[in-house]
Amino acid sequence: MARDPTRPYFAGTDRDRAAFEAGIKLGSLLHQFLGTPVTRKNAASLERAIEAAVRVQPLVQDVRVRIDRKRLRIRGPYRYGILTEDLLRVDVTVRVGASKAIAALRYVPELDYPLMYLKAIGRPTKD
Amino acid sequence: MARDPTRPYFAGTDRDRAAFEAGIKLGSLLHQFLGTPVTRKNAASLERAIEAAVRVQPLVQDVRVRIDRKRLRIRGPYRYGILTEDLLRVDVTVRVGASKAIAALRYVPELDYPLMYLKAIGRPTKD
Amino acid sequence: MARDPTRPYFAGTDRDRAAFEAGIKLGSLLHQFLGTPVTRKNAASLERAIEAAVRVQPLVQDVRVRIDRKRLRIRGPYRYGILTEDLLRVDVTVRVGASKAIAALRYVPELDYPLMYLKAIGRPTKD
Amino acid sequence: MARDPTRPYFAGTDRDRAAFEAGIKLGSLLHQFLGTPVTRKNAASLERAIEAAVRVQPLVQDVRVRIDRKRLRIRGPYRYGILTEDLLRVDVTVRVGASKAIAALRYVPELDYPLMYLKAIGRPTKD
Repeated sequence: MARDPTRPYFAGTDRDRAAFEAGIKLGSLLHQFLGTPVTRKNAASLERAIEAAVRVQPLVQDVRVRIDRKRLRIRGPYRYGILTEDLLRVDVTVRVGASKAIAALRYVPELDYPLMYLKAIGRPTKD
Repeated sequence: MARDPTRPYFAGTDRDRAAFEAGIKLGSLLHQFLGTPVTRKNAASLERAIEAAVRVQPLVQDVRVRIDRKRLRIRGPYRYGILTEDLLRVDVTVRVGASKAIAALRYVPELDYPLMYLKAIGRPTKD
Repeated sequence: MARDPTRPYFAGTDRDRAAFEAGIKLGSLLHQFLGTPVTRKNAASLERAIEAAVRVQPLVQDVRVRIDRKRLRIRGPYRYGILTEDLLRVDVTVRVGASKAIAALRYVPELDYPLMYLKAIGRPTKD
Repeated sequence: MARDPTRPYFAGTDRDRAAFEAGIKLGSLLHQFLGTPVTRKNAASLERAIEAAVRVQPLVQDVRVRIDRKRLRIRGPYRYGILTEDLLRVDVTVRVGASKAIAALRYVPELDYPLMYLKAIGRPTKD
């Protein structure tokens, strides 16, 4: 998109926006899909659907979603679980102009927290 | 499930519960997936993921989900849409003991409303 | 609503529909609000907002929502939690014609499961 | 939070993270609350609950949420609407170290799009 019509609305640089958009993608997907019923039977189809739903969004270059089967808690009389924030492992790459942000969502045991963080930010090395 | 341990908690008949559970399934899926980014590219993967997520839930015998591509509103500079309640066509069959409920979600033009309704309720004809 | 225009779409009795609508309300609210960030600071405002959002829906006569502060799990470096299905205690009353359904959502320790069930179904005693 | 234990996980500067966190907040709230039943009766309670749920999240300094009553589409036989992405007007301020990001969500008629954008990013002028 050579001339993005949303550009005039933005303060800051392409790098700022890359970081911002990466945050939008992670926050959106977490709160969209949290609570979805899940077992080993449908985990793969849910992973693919989440990835596909991220890919249709603006500026996304790449995305990978994994549901941690080992942490999946199957319970109750009907033996199913739901998607929780600790189960998701996500990596998303966003590009704005010449700037790229790679962000991740991971449950971090040391923090007991599903952390969203920037893994890399700045100009892509060479593409 | 010959002896369902949740049974003592329920007032009413198996038929009442079949209607109740059908309502749970439709309400849950609508509010779970509403807002998911969607285009013609990912509509099929989203349909399959919704169906699979319904199937892992209690007492579901059958489910069919369709996203109405013709009503899908692609818009904005980034050319994508989101899943709205008017786009979903769902049929779900729930069985409790000998009672079966078939429920549907359809956008009804005459009402300008995405209606959830019981299509059939009672004892299955012969299975 | 003396003549409900949705009536012709429904199979079954008013009682069937009361059970169905009660299920819709519980399923909807659970999957709508699951994942909302919550601490003791905002639990009351969230309870009120959920109740108010249920009350604007069809056929609802009464609703009560409580978030279990004792089960609320505050964690991580930022000391907040999210709304999980085990935290919600909900009672909702739906009326269709002369039939009333009272449904509940409770975490049941014996089942290790957040159960949605019908507490009462049928004709109201006298109102 | 003088020593944030999440810091070692982050690439980039405080400014990058401020932009990223602002994106998380907007993406999260949109996809959390989209689809909530709403009329003029419960719009104010929903606005307050969304604000309160954002405030308990990390690094948020300020947030303001408005639901556009004029764009609210009440419809169907039961005369209610749902929260759509075009109805929300949000401003959120996030601070990381000495860096501040102010982000907004607005429906922009020229773009026919609910745009999330950075209104300001960088060091706060003097506080």
